[in-house]
Amino acid sequence: MPKVSEDHLAARRSQILDGARRCFADFGYDGATVRRLEIATGLSRGAIFHHFKDKDGLFLALAQEDAERMADVASNEGLVQVMRDMLSSPEQFNWLGTRLEITRRLRTDPEFAKAWTQRSAELTEATVGRLERQRNAGKLRDDVPTEVLVAYLDLVLDGLIARLASGHAEIELGRVLDLVEESVRRRD
Amino acid sequence: MPKVSEDHLAARRSQILDGARRCFADFGYDGATVRRLEIATGLSRGAIFHHFKDKDGLFLALAQEDAERMADVASNEGLVQVMRDMLSSPEQFNWLGTRLEITRRLRTDPEFAKAWTQRSAELTEATVGRLERQRNAGKLRDDVPTEVLVAYLDLVLDGLIARLASGHAEIELGRVLDLVEESVRRRD
Repeated sequence: MPKVSEDHLAARRSQILDGARRCFADFGYDGATVRRLEIATGLSRGAIFHHFKDKDGLFLALAQEDAERMADVASNEGLVQVMRDMLSSPEQFNWLGTRLEITRRLRTDPEFAKAWTQRSAELTEATVGRLERQRNAGKLRDDVPTEVLVAYLDLVLDGLIARLASGHAEIELGRVLDLVEESVRRRD
Repeated sequence: MPKVSEDHLAARRSQILDGARRCFADFGYDGATVRRLEIATGLSRGAIFHHFKDKDGLFLALAQEDAERMADVASNEGLVQVMRDMLSSPEQFNWLGTRLEITRRLRTDPEFAKAWTQRSAELTEATVGRLERQRNAGKLRDDVPTEVLVAYLDLVLDGLIARLASGHAEIELGRVLDLVEESVRRRD
């Protein structure tokens, strides 16, 4: 019965990812030792690394989960809505601080940087797609090319991730996102 | 001759800070070991920690140097100009990635967070002062309160730091900063 087996594998994979996400959030990338990953997931290192090649593999799989979820929202409601969601449940994004800890590796480890970029490409594509549809519907400002608007929204997203990771997501940020949203819109 | 002695102390302090900045940029916060700090500064640990209490002290002194320099530009030319400067000489800001690595501590170490906030207050004050003067001169949009504009510019700055630290400061970012600048201005 391969179906049962596949369900089991998927459930196990998801159990590992949920535990790893908490573990990274609590201890950071370097602090998430194999022992702590075992405790957080309730599984042995053998079981964990049967599903994921190594800690980088786990990390990139979590980044992929995020990218898929965010791409879904970005495609339907835009990247600013992704940011609003982050703002309204910051505790779900505690682990994102781990992304900041690995920033150095994006600069110094080309293989890791490539794997990372592949995973974030999906979100960029979703954002570009949404902006293009908004542009065609006449809702987007037409004096700035789409790639600049995408880079702008990406930059704000990076800032928001840094802010949430530092625990300083003040109430003003909702109004800041209003301003961001308005600044890509067509003005009447 | 206390003057000579003071000059000497200041020169030594500056020698330590320059070396430490390079060391943090090359190895990150955790990677900047005492041994590496000795090599980078050309001084013994005794000499280094005569001037600075510990590695946190060094780190916060570098943050303070940055804050003073950035506050100066922010006060005269605005926070967007600070960002343009970063963009035009990214190699000078390599060490900023270290700021991202310590983000977790802003959330988990109240004493460190307090020391850090004190150092960034100067930059915030300079930015607020500049915006208020721009507002009084009728150059600022008047439908958004100053604190929201400051929070907006701060958020973009955090994003830019993350981008520079990752080594992905694309050419579009200059045009993104044009958009940011324009979005706080009064529209005629």
